[in-house]
Amino acid sequence: MLSHGGGGIEMNDLINKTIFKAFDNEILRQSNDSAILGDFKNLAFSTDSFVVTPLFFNGADIGKIAVCGTINDLAMVGASAKYLSCAFIIEEGLEIDEFERILNSMAKVCKEADVKIVCGDTKVVPKGKCDKIFINTSGVGEILAPNICTDSLKVGAKILLSADIGRHGAVVLANREEFEFFGELKSDCKSLKGVVSELLGSGVTPLCMRDATRGGLSAVLNEWASYSKSEILVFEESIKVSDEVTGICELLGFEPYELANEGTFVLAVKPDDEKKALEILSKFDKNASVIGEIVSDKNSRVILQNAYGSRRFLEPPKGELLPRIC
Amino acid sequence: MLSHGGGGIEMNDLINKTIFKAFDNEILRQSNDSAILGDFKNLAFSTDSFVVTPLFFNGADIGKIAVCGTINDLAMVGASAKYLSCAFIIEEGLEIDEFERILNSMAKVCKEADVKIVCGDTKVVPKGKCDKIFINTSGVGEILAPNICTDSLKVGAKILLSADIGRHGAVVLANREEFEFFGELKSDCKSLKGVVSELLGSGVTPLCMRDATRGGLSAVLNEWASYSKSEILVFEESIKVSDEVTGICELLGFEPYELANEGTFVLAVKPDDEKKALEILSKFDKNASVIGEIVSDKNSRVILQNAYGSRRFLEPPKGELLPRIC
Repeated sequence: MLSHGGGGIEMNDLINKTIFKAFDNEILRQSNDSAILGDFKNLAFSTDSFVVTPLFFNGADIGKIAVCGTINDLAMVGASAKYLSCAFIIEEGLEIDEFERILNSMAKVCKEADVKIVCGDTKVVPKGKCDKIFINTSGVGEILAPNICTDSLKVGAKILLSADIGRHGAVVLANREEFEFFGELKSDCKSLKGVVSELLGSGVTPLCMRDATRGGLSAVLNEWASYSKSEILVFEESIKVSDEVTGICELLGFEPYELANEGTFVLAVKPDDEKKALEILSKFDKNASVIGEIVSDKNSRVILQNAYGSRRFLEPPKGELLPRIC
Repeated sequence: MLSHGGGGIEMNDLINKTIFKAFDNEILRQSNDSAILGDFKNLAFSTDSFVVTPLFFNGADIGKIAVCGTINDLAMVGASAKYLSCAFIIEEGLEIDEFERILNSMAKVCKEADVKIVCGDTKVVPKGKCDKIFINTSGVGEILAPNICTDSLKVGAKILLSADIGRHGAVVLANREEFEFFGELKSDCKSLKGVVSELLGSGVTPLCMRDATRGGLSAVLNEWASYSKSEILVFEESIKVSDEVTGICELLGFEPYELANEGTFVLAVKPDDEKKALEILSKFDKNASVIGEIVSDKNSRVILQNAYGSRRFLEPPKGELLPRIC
């Protein structure tokens, strides 16, 4: 079902009950954004396929998202992306102009982020057997700081968010529905290599990082709570959401917490690092904020407290969220 | 066009004129099966997407081919595959039984070849937007012997073939057309990690290796001739083709030289290594043979000589070969 790819409960079930079961090993079991390969010199390794529709949307396109997505997965384990692979599955009939526009967009991000595409593959399938173009990028990067992983999540850790949430999901949705009223709203799609590199260089020791892609902020917090068996408390008023994203959510019945982001990440740090970490995140995005903390080593759940002090569970996303958001 | 994915002239044009142009860098320009990354400890990196149809066929399935394909691309630069990524694009409605059969097939090859799948991704697209399942695997491996690359191809090099050709292409074709008469013919799909490891361990110094996948033997030899600007002479009677493959080729008008293989490779060695190399290849497949040599450093072409001594050009494959063969 489509819900098996949405980033919610059904996807986690599919991954845990069938894929992890078949391929089980200790590296996979860590469930980080990238695999950490100890026997190569500080190597991290990650993969993502991209099937986003439409191919072009406000602020990005499938090419930019394909490069940033893998750079960001590497950044989230404290690794600096160096080399990417790139594999295209192309539907017969894709215009060469569109393909070149995508290639140039990929090349531009690679140049800005100082990463090289070093190997690739191209398959062409008959018309009707895929939808225009799907792109896989995999990447290897050098780990700059060790042990940034879900195992490091402990009670007392402060939770920060690098920007306002939901822009990518809202923009793709708005472009798909051909809404005209979303104004200047753009996808947050961007490389996080720079901000993570600056964080690590400043002496901040991130406990765990995760970019809030499919399933949004809610998926990240719930995965963290579930993996570490802890209770995470976050404050609604600290989580920034733009007026445009709020509007689209109200209109279509989405929660901004579940909307995908492509350049926004969640960061857990020790209390001592909170101030420095926020200072650096704020240099890159004025909407960076501290949104909560891990309050208990029990319960495996996320609590959302609003401005009036009332609390509710922030449930993990489920059902058909937004298919083909990335 | 479909021909842009077939492994022939049109695909090379697409890759060289658009993709390499956009992503240009010296590692990519080497055009090896895997990227050789000097700044990590002996690291090779490769990627392939698999869109083969049907999903299951005599001797293999999309899962086995996806794992073997990347293991083999690494083996071809003298690297021992250690870790794979695995990214699925699944069409809504794929039966979980079929998916599990594919997963188990992948897990089996991984176990046999001692490689681990350490990271992954799952996307689900609506019905009609892909064809059942596409799989990308990327892989990293440890380079066991340096400089196995197209740059090492020089006049005098002996050309060996590890098995008879065309079985994979013929089987997929026969399964697709529901031919019943192909008897015991099976795809040659298998991991080449073992044979390459034994070659390297024996002291043979391969100059260059390439598995003869899309575009078959003809594509490999023509790429080598083109890259090294040399003339390669091969002998028709030394190139083994089974009766079943010959039969399917005659019936459908294909050349066995252009049919895909998924566990058969071409090896160039110095004359001193010829005997030892053939001895080792023969331990793994009785149809291994020496098929020719590089006879001139000019002309960028491949000559095929038949048993009567008459010669013709072995042209690079072109046009719509077999779509979705891997």
